Amino acid sequence: MAAPSDEEGAVGPRCHHRSTAMLDVPFLPFCAFLGTLGLLCVAMVGTWCQHWRGGFSLDGSSRTFNWHPVLMVTGLVVLYGAAALVYRIPNTWSGPKLPWKVLHGSLALGAFVLTVLGLAAVFCFHNSQGTPNMYSLHSWMGLGTVLLFSCQWAAGFGAFLLPWAPTWLRALYKPIHVFFGSTILMLSVASCMSGINEKLFFSLKNGTMEYKLLPAEAVFANTLGLLILIFGVLVVAALARPSWKRPDSDSPDSRQ
Amino acid sequence: MAAPSDEEGAVGPRCHHRSTAMLDVPFLPFCAFLGTLGLLCVAMVGTWCQHWRGGFSLDGSSRTFNWHPVLMVTGLVVLYGAAALVYRIPNTWSGPKLPWKVLHGSLALGAFVLTVLGLAAVFCFHNSQGTPNMYSLHSWMGLGTVLLFSCQWAAGFGAFLLPWAPTWLRALYKPIHVFFGSTILMLSVASCMSGINEKLFFSLKNGTMEYKLLPAEAVFANTLGLLILIFGVLVVAALARPSWKRPDSDSPDSRQ
Repeated sequence: MAAPSDEEGAVGPRCHHRSTAMLDVPFLPFCAFLGTLGLLCVAMVGTWCQHWRGGFSLDGSSRTFNWHPVLMVTGLVVLYGAAALVYRIPNTWSGPKLPWKVLHGSLALGAFVLTVLGLAAVFCFHNSQGTPNMYSLHSWMGLGTVLLFSCQWAAGFGAFLLPWAPTWLRALYKPIHVFFGSTILMLSVASCMSGINEKLFFSLKNGTMEYKLLPAEAVFANTLGLLILIFGVLVVAALARPSWKRPDSDSPDSRQ
Repeated sequence: MAAPSDEEGAVGPRCHHRSTAMLDVPFLPFCAFLGTLGLLCVAMVGTWCQHWRGGFSLDGSSRTFNWHPVLMVTGLVVLYGAAALVYRIPNTWSGPKLPWKVLHGSLALGAFVLTVLGLAAVFCFHNSQGTPNMYSLHSWMGLGTVLLFSCQWAAGFGAFLLPWAPTWLRALYKPIHVFFGSTILMLSVASCMSGINEKLFFSLKNGTMEYKLLPAEAVFANTLGLLILIFGVLVVAALARPSWKRPDSDSPDSRQ
């Protein structure tokens, strides 16, 4: 059962207040928990590649491929999630807005740069091994997600950071930008899930280590996958939570 | 760039009206498009299994496995999406509410039954082949999604259909139910993506058909994956669209 009518909430103010208070979670401790979870994901994907997959290099071998999961999880999931949450920090709700806009755009740009490097790693590995690029559903979905992200960044920059964007265009584009903010994160997480799954089937092939026998590496990487999933869902939940959204205001710097 | 401040929308009413009108899409044609897309996904997953994977049976062979993708896409994605959208139909916004609640719960229950049958198909296939169950990340994520769905259905039934649920409990639970409605659909879609990807790597192994050579089956199933992804994103977008949500009201049957 997915979407009950809004009428369920048609209750008296006292009752509504009580129910809201029961769900009250302060943003900053939640954010600290999310940050820890994100860092744990980065540490775990690094550990997986270092401990079980031979570490990192730039020589076109599978050790070059290993940059791919590390950079994608760090850029397209964790740093992207941090960028998405900037406007939920209460400090951003008053005072000059431009610095926060620049921080949001810069974190997103950092996420995008890591993502492009992560793509370069897998293309370099494929090309040096003579493996075709872009054949699996994982690659189609992943590249589609990165293309959407690049459009999102460019359109966000053009509409919200460049001073000449007309107000009606910002109003038109804002809900689209917000929706795709969460959507791209969910697509990134879905891409990570299929990527980890695929990598484990590729890597765990010989008789003693087969994926279906669930060796330690498989348990570790499956757990990493679930933590990435939980991170993504919690960021989307934080973005959707009404009481954590910036209250609408007409501060003079709204068109900075 | 994922979440600009709500301040971007701080524009005059005329400007806001113009921007909203430019994005205005009528719900019913959109819904008809979504229905067509959902049916196309069901037809394509059936065609994939029938034409390339040997069809269907109940003998524990790979033809038993073939029920798994068909039932999961039909139940956990398409029928689930239909259940989620019931309260977005304008006809549900007036008159007695109970029939619509029953329709919402029944469609979700139908989706759940198909999902459980889909799980039974893959467990039956694994058991008859001596393959372990529940080792891949796909299986962990998929089973987690189904468990969440079962909690969602039971809690929704208890809170919104049983008459003795107190109003404060409904108000407390409603935003959680709505959030998990969209989240479970995204998890279902992510599970489908990793499942299709994994199945293609398993099935396309011999020299002339390898996945990386992108034979017709791979293009067909990758396209199916992308259509499922688009279906899921469009359903979540429809659920999130403010103008398609049921206006809050105090109609006397709100506690039916």
